[in-house]
Amino acid sequence: MEAVMNNVTIEKAKTSKIKDVDFDNLSFGSIYTDHMLVCDYKNGQWQAPKVVPYQPITLDPSSKIFHYGQSIFEGMKAYKDESGSVWLFRPLENFKRLNKSAKRMAMPELPESYFMDGLTTLLQVDSDWIPQSAGSSLYIRPFMFASGNGFHASPADEYKFIIALAPSGSYFSGKVKVLIEKQYSRAANGGVGFAKTGGNYAGQFYPTRLAAEKGYQQVIWTDDNNHEYIEEAGAMNVFVRINDMLLTAPTNDRILDGITRKSILDIAKDEGIKTEIRKVSVKEVVEAAKNGSLKEMFGAGTAAVVSPISAFGYEGVDYDLPELEDSYASLLKKRITDIQYNRAEDKFGWRHEVV
Amino acid sequence: MEAVMNNVTIEKAKTSKIKDVDFDNLSFGSIYTDHMLVCDYKNGQWQAPKVVPYQPITLDPSSKIFHYGQSIFEGMKAYKDESGSVWLFRPLENFKRLNKSAKRMAMPELPESYFMDGLTTLLQVDSDWIPQSAGSSLYIRPFMFASGNGFHASPADEYKFIIALAPSGSYFSGKVKVLIEKQYSRAANGGVGFAKTGGNYAGQFYPTRLAAEKGYQQVIWTDDNNHEYIEEAGAMNVFVRINDMLLTAPTNDRILDGITRKSILDIAKDEGIKTEIRKVSVKEVVEAAKNGSLKEMFGAGTAAVVSPISAFGYEGVDYDLPELEDSYASLLKKRITDIQYNRAEDKFGWRHEVV
Ligand SMILES: Cc1ncc(COP(=O)(O)O)c(C=O)c1O
Ligand SMILES: Cc1ncc(COP(=O)(O)O)c(C=O)c1O
Repeated sequence: MEAVMNNVTIEKAKTSKIKDVDFDNLSFGSIYTDHMLVCDYKNGQWQAPKVVPYQPITLDPSSKIFHYGQSIFEGMKAYKDESGSVWLFRPLENFKRLNKSAKRMAMPELPESYFMDGLTTLLQVDSDWIPQSAGSSLYIRPFMFASGNGFHASPADEYKFIIALAPSGSYFSGKVKVLIEKQYSRAANGGVGFAKTGGNYAGQFYPTRLAAEKGYQQVIWTDDNNHEYIEEAGAMNVFVRINDMLLTAPTNDRILDGITRKSILDIAKDEGIKTEIRKVSVKEVVEAAKNGSLKEMFGAGTAAVVSPISAFGYEGVDYDLPELEDSYASLLKKRITDIQYNRAEDKFGWRHEVV
Repeated sequence: MEAVMNNVTIEKAKTSKIKDVDFDNLSFGSIYTDHMLVCDYKNGQWQAPKVVPYQPITLDPSSKIFHYGQSIFEGMKAYKDESGSVWLFRPLENFKRLNKSAKRMAMPELPESYFMDGLTTLLQVDSDWIPQSAGSSLYIRPFMFASGNGFHASPADEYKFIIALAPSGSYFSGKVKVLIEKQYSRAANGGVGFAKTGGNYAGQFYPTRLAAEKGYQQVIWTDDNNHEYIEEAGAMNVFVRINDMLLTAPTNDRILDGITRKSILDIAKDEGIKTEIRKVSVKEVVEAAKNGSLKEMFGAGTAAVVSPISAFGYEGVDYDLPELEDSYASLLKKRITDIQYNRAEDKFGWRHEVV
């Protein structure tokens, strides 16, 4: 059965898996909906995107994705409000970042209409899968990878762009304890840290596992020169509150330019919270922890939303953060999720209705 | 039809593709033999390796290889001598490096017997595919990737290890012109540069493409701090000869510990060539080029063998290297290939016969 919507061809799945899903007990990103969007790049151009049944991908063993790491992705969410309307949060920012990542990884940039029309069509087809229970949402995973063949270390001539959907619960359970890293690094100056590319994540797994063995859920990465400055965490940007000032590192070619991060900065300003975008040294954070001026730390990201940090480890010492009544983290989390779920006015124009 | 050899099960291809191959005009790594080795990791252990017909791989769209870059590989060659015997060159070094890469990328290490028995069995099954013409060889590509599923940014629970074979011609055609990089970087201190992982290659493609547009075939990477020191090239380590001294950078966590590099160092010493393993600054190379003491530069790697560099570009200026009668590059290339193809005594014990 084929249909066309927004110029996107739709091939419907014969049966739905939705009745097997326990929407009250969702983990993060481990169940996928009935359909996916597929768009192939060959002969120098993108073919029209299609919604097809969620299905396996078949590749030659020489496909460059297996050898040379040309892969990029995005992470987004779809939110369903009380009336059943479906919303995206700043989707064009994800689209633009995808293409920035594509360029750095020598992959072809995608046309905006393929991304937006493909995504909204897919969401309409699988809209029953968008959870409405608190804390749950539909995680959206657009990704692109090298499907062309060959052992020569050079860019592939074919690529696949896919969007898959996963109804998901929260990324972290509870508060997060982090380790400020002194030995390993996430990104090089002049490297690919700002791109959302597979290799940036694979490189973090081993140090993160070492940290997990000591009881930390995430690593806070520092610059690779001297490990002096705080950069970001595994899957989120990091904010530090010293007294009443909210600090976060400037983005650069080592740090992912998080959409949650910049939204939080705008909301904080709107709330009259003093913010500063500047290098944050590990030394000043440790000193602030010691003298009591360190009030909060939290991570910000699409998957993690706003995740309060309960403690950080550094050079073998753990520093606990205080429990605050009126934390910036809870205020900012409420404001951003109220916009995302269409529970509050959208003065920034960030919401995008899926119709 | 199933057989067993060295504890490896063999499922033979029904027909062979070999008659379609033009062995006199081989490109690099674009034709694959009739079989491949496959070994799956699940439930916390490696399953027995199998030789099977070369065939596509089917994966779920949520397989972590598409998202989080857990992939490693090796590059080796099989050489056939005049009598038809088949040789490997220091294969255990590749095996050890594979497991070093695996560890850094939070992937499971492979048992030595699975690697060695799997490889030699596969080579015996496809031994007709090993070219005997000068300059050609059978390129061997062992690789491992995350096949387990999930959008959570954490190591996969399943992996595939595969060895594929590609009868290949030379990697470069002729001498190589290189660009010494000032802006982009390959690896971070504390990062994954020493691991043979996909992301290290994907990150090089865009800067290498920019260099290619200016007429350079490879980029010579420098440290990411100040771009002061020469590290390595895209797919080979780099040697610099100033007067009679052969220099190469020490390996560290940013540089691949090349097997050709260390073999070349041993052969050079054996030849009475003075060698020094130390940081080589761009400044001294440029000065040596200017005052005429820069005699040679060459790359060394399994695919590239020993590849003379004809010129390097730096800050907009091209520096040509002299044409030497008795270059170290040609002497060292002859010595190493004579060992590889069983044309000379193997005083270092590097050759490994496939029987
Ligand atoms: C490394 C990293 N930093 C930061 C973020 C936050 O970015 P965003 O707010 O756009 O989701 C992410 C992704 O979620 C990430 O993977
Ligand atoms: C980045 C890099 N450096 C150096 C080398 C050379 O290593 P080997 O001599 O072990 O092939 C390679 C691989 O061939 C490589 O990919």
